[in-house]
Amino acid sequence: MNRSADETNRQSLQVDLGERSYTIHIGALGIREPAEFAKLLDPLIAGQQVAVITNETVAPLYLDAVLGALGQRQVDVYQLPDGESHKNLASFEAVTTFLLEARHNRTTCLIALGGGVVGDLCGFVAATFQRGVDFIQIPTTLLAQVDSSVGGKTAVNHPAGKNMIGAFYQPKAVLADTTVLATLPPREYAAGLAEVVKYGVIDDVEFFRWLEANVAALRSRSSDALQQVILRSCASKAKVVSEDERESGRRAILNFGHTFGHAIEKLAGYGQWLHGEAVAIGMVMAADLSVRHCGFAQVDALRLRHLLEALGLPVTLGDQELETQAMIEAMGLDKKVSDGQLRFVLARQLGEVYVCDDVSVQTLKAVLDPSQS
Amino acid sequence: MNRSADETNRQSLQVDLGERSYTIHIGALGIREPAEFAKLLDPLIAGQQVAVITNETVAPLYLDAVLGALGQRQVDVYQLPDGESHKNLASFEAVTTFLLEARHNRTTCLIALGGGVVGDLCGFVAATFQRGVDFIQIPTTLLAQVDSSVGGKTAVNHPAGKNMIGAFYQPKAVLADTTVLATLPPREYAAGLAEVVKYGVIDDVEFFRWLEANVAALRSRSSDALQQVILRSCASKAKVVSEDERESGRRAILNFGHTFGHAIEKLAGYGQWLHGEAVAIGMVMAADLSVRHCGFAQVDALRLRHLLEALGLPVTLGDQELETQAMIEAMGLDKKVSDGQLRFVLARQLGEVYVCDDVSVQTLKAVLDPSQS
Repeated sequence: MNRSADETNRQSLQVDLGERSYTIHIGALGIREPAEFAKLLDPLIAGQQVAVITNETVAPLYLDAVLGALGQRQVDVYQLPDGESHKNLASFEAVTTFLLEARHNRTTCLIALGGGVVGDLCGFVAATFQRGVDFIQIPTTLLAQVDSSVGGKTAVNHPAGKNMIGAFYQPKAVLADTTVLATLPPREYAAGLAEVVKYGVIDDVEFFRWLEANVAALRSRSSDALQQVILRSCASKAKVVSEDERESGRRAILNFGHTFGHAIEKLAGYGQWLHGEAVAIGMVMAADLSVRHCGFAQVDALRLRHLLEALGLPVTLGDQELETQAMIEAMGLDKKVSDGQLRFVLARQLGEVYVCDDVSVQTLKAVLDPSQS
Repeated sequence: MNRSADETNRQSLQVDLGERSYTIHIGALGIREPAEFAKLLDPLIAGQQVAVITNETVAPLYLDAVLGALGQRQVDVYQLPDGESHKNLASFEAVTTFLLEARHNRTTCLIALGGGVVGDLCGFVAATFQRGVDFIQIPTTLLAQVDSSVGGKTAVNHPAGKNMIGAFYQPKAVLADTTVLATLPPREYAAGLAEVVKYGVIDDVEFFRWLEANVAALRSRSSDALQQVILRSCASKAKVVSEDERESGRRAILNFGHTFGHAIEKLAGYGQWLHGEAVAIGMVMAADLSVRHCGFAQVDALRLRHLLEALGLPVTLGDQELETQAMIEAMGLDKKVSDGQLRFVLARQLGEVYVCDDVSVQTLKAVLDPSQS
């Protein structure tokens, strides 16, 4: 990818994927100023039809301004209810039917205006509507700006599992306006920072140090700091993904902390912890496992813990009891435990992780229940 | 693509699409002999899970033999009811749920055993199941063997239109066993030949002449003749598609006769004419339009008509009345008529067609209602 600073208050990042390459625009992009935003949006839309897919929380904040930037085209708006529970096949069918009834054709352009749920659903509709139409991401949460904008993952959930139905499909562009983050609830903002810290650990120790040095600016949501955060996180993710677009190997390192995190979310009941919060606790566990298994420095595990705490994230389960056996089952490792071969993403040092296939059950149990070790 | 004859009674065709390249195996492949068929099938399946998607008409004929060729893997079978009406989102969801309940993971391989409906639906499930898994086509109709096997089009229908939800997604391989065509009902067999004749017209005049010279062998369903028919049709289609995988330009020539054909199907009521029959009549109309608009030789239009008739296909609507205005509307041209700019695929000569943007309304009306011209 290539970074470039077109103005002082915005930068862009080119994601190189051959004919599916696209640009991520990051910074104060003027989402509330139609004339300004149109300068970015207009050249990205080839045809005369646009459909904005958004939700009831985001629409009151930005929809009018975005519509104002879309000019004289046919523009239709579909508002989803808020929440992960609507990222399903029923919503997929409803949006598709809406587009067909409004007579959108193969030259239409879909715009995802919202967080990860809107982006994943809209992207999957775009991937499959008449076998694929253009779409543009306008992510409005920190998590979506740093994570969902790169990698081409689109999906809906199935009762049997999250993201079970989907496609790899790239947007025409991503417009990540940092000014929208000012209105995020504090927990949701902090949860987004957990994924940001992850990029420091898995790919970019310089960035990790920068985060340590800029905690105050991050807590105050400084626009300059957020621009750096999104740019460097997207750059790291784009680097990893470009080596492995369809997720067969290297891309697994993006799951650092996630095996533990998913199990924590599941055991506590979805909704108890935000995804980013569970990942924060999971990264602390993964760091501990790395210390025990492959010589990751104890001091660096502590730095990770302190950085997450300083950013307002949980680093332990607190009062919640955590049964080792239940965690092992929730991680889907119960069958593999009997083989004695467990796979985790571990850190060798800050900025360098690897997929490890030979973690012993004893070491894992020591992490899950330190009192037993 | 590259053709190669590995044995006298079978040939193969390589479809070159970079890392998504695959092979079409054509001929007497031994679909009824598990040990023989396993030699082809086994190397194509990377994992330990297979799901065969088929329908209630095809299953009694070939399912047991195919299952016998799949070895000791986990094999699950989903049988659809027969018919285009089941190529919809409900079936898509049912098959996906079936796979998840049988705990298929991302290493599974789907096998489409059936005609175009099974292939289109199974392909779309494969394109989207956990963001994409392997699939193998075993087409059991002539139409599916010559047409659905190449081009990567997968889809389901929506009440608002055919193939409105889908993806471009390539199979791992296509196994086109010519011996299965012996049991096709005569009308369905002839309908498949209509698409075959199309390839002679749009791409390969030598093949057109070969078809004229081999009518008797084709009517008797000679295995050798069918091997040629499928090989040359797939080769022509692969050539056109490789120039335009995502259907932005050149690929439109595959629709020769189809603008008329679709309108005929729609006006008569779906199910009245088989798709191939409507295309046969539509190609005669397209040839007539070519004679009138761009100097296609009258004698070649007659050769096309005679070849289609000799193969048992209809070449006129017979007693059915055909209202010019209704046809224009059914072709979706009613709005474009007012601009006076109509787009059709026309023939310059046998083996050479082009997309023409300046057909006049008068010329079109003369084709639709010759008594008025």
